[in-house]
Amino acid sequence: MNKISKEIKVIAFDADDTLWINETYFRDAEHEFAKLLAKYETENKIDRELFRVEIKNLKNYGYGIKGFVLSMIECALEISNHQVHQKTIEEILNIGKDMLNKPIELLDGIEEVLRSLQGKYKLIVATKGDLLDQERKLENSNLLQYFHHVEVMSDKKESDYLKLLNHLDIKPSELLMIGNSLKSDVLPLVQIGASAIHVPFHTTWVHEEVTVDLSSKVKYCTISNIKEVLALF
Amino acid sequence: MNKISKEIKVIAFDADDTLWINETYFRDAEHEFAKLLAKYETENKIDRELFRVEIKNLKNYGYGIKGFVLSMIECALEISNHQVHQKTIEEILNIGKDMLNKPIELLDGIEEVLRSLQGKYKLIVATKGDLLDQERKLENSNLLQYFHHVEVMSDKKESDYLKLLNHLDIKPSELLMIGNSLKSDVLPLVQIGASAIHVPFHTTWVHEEVTVDLSSKVKYCTISNIKEVLALF
Repeated sequence: MNKISKEIKVIAFDADDTLWINETYFRDAEHEFAKLLAKYETENKIDRELFRVEIKNLKNYGYGIKGFVLSMIECALEISNHQVHQKTIEEILNIGKDMLNKPIELLDGIEEVLRSLQGKYKLIVATKGDLLDQERKLENSNLLQYFHHVEVMSDKKESDYLKLLNHLDIKPSELLMIGNSLKSDVLPLVQIGASAIHVPFHTTWVHEEVTVDLSSKVKYCTISNIKEVLALF
Repeated sequence: MNKISKEIKVIAFDADDTLWINETYFRDAEHEFAKLLAKYETENKIDRELFRVEIKNLKNYGYGIKGFVLSMIECALEISNHQVHQKTIEEILNIGKDMLNKPIELLDGIEEVLRSLQGKYKLIVATKGDLLDQERKLENSNLLQYFHHVEVMSDKKESDYLKLLNHLDIKPSELLMIGNSLKSDVLPLVQIGASAIHVPFHTTWVHEEVTVDLSSKVKYCTISNIKEVLALF
């Protein structure tokens, strides 16, 4: 993809780590969590156990901070063999509340890009986070004015994007997705015949990491800063 | 409202306690929770404390099972003065997982109504629950085929319905909402000039209870079984 197709009608932006910083807060929370449980295990082991519990719970809890907090509590009970102090459980709840109230830090260039695209395309946010949390961030970010609406998706697989197309009443060739996750924001789009631009963020959750088979020649473009999007139009 | 307006294009259905049983499961969970903490307080006092914690956390957690579980844990720590056994915390987590995996029990007549309206109107689900949870229920309910898509709303106030209208690109007079909550599914709709049908469920969460000022003469209709909807078309 050298230039954006003339067919594009809707541009969907991923939210976390595309519009604003997010993953960094999860890394910080994991670090705090490991400190709370330091007398039971090494940080490395705690990290791995938490990840295992999160993945196990993904089908129940989905993505987002609340499920993350529930998994931290479950993990703390397991790692401590039910010895973890009740005040520590309270501190874990507070890690979650702090995360939910973090200020919004926009990624460089986002507002310039949105301002430039607004009016020419229908701009939407397509995220698999928690709706309340994403709406709160959008309001605090002052970016709400640029978007037609927020699409919260329960997952970001091909079938979820097909549902999104149906919902938007557009063809695959009319959708462009911009996001930081190759696995969630780029590859499924390319597979269904839509367009995608990859803007990597410096930190990626292990679950979002993916190995791309270069021989498959899927077509998308990777840029290092969101502002480079504008040169593609 | 005696007959449905000819202008209606979209019919939005509330999900929990309109399509399927839900509130009953919360009442059951509250009862189980009170049993777990029976040595600290009476069930009545525990119920009230849990409600207080839930309302306090609503702006952080929003609606849904995950926030409910986090509030139960917080409440258990408070009521027990941090003495609650760690295994009890685990049992609270399990109450939540059980809730998330409850089978779907459709309310009487729902499928007949959806089958009759399908094709004549765009049918959507408009819910303020958790997206993953609502999608799971919709898939397990076999009702997915009737709906164009699911709208998850962070709240159901007038401003949220105005956003929904904007998103659907329709006028207020083109929307009909059907639901069990006067406060969330009926009154805000009537206020913005849309239509609403109230189908009460036998149990309503205290937070959803509302006193209607009869002198205000807001117009909506109340039916006792969803099947009565069909007579209005």
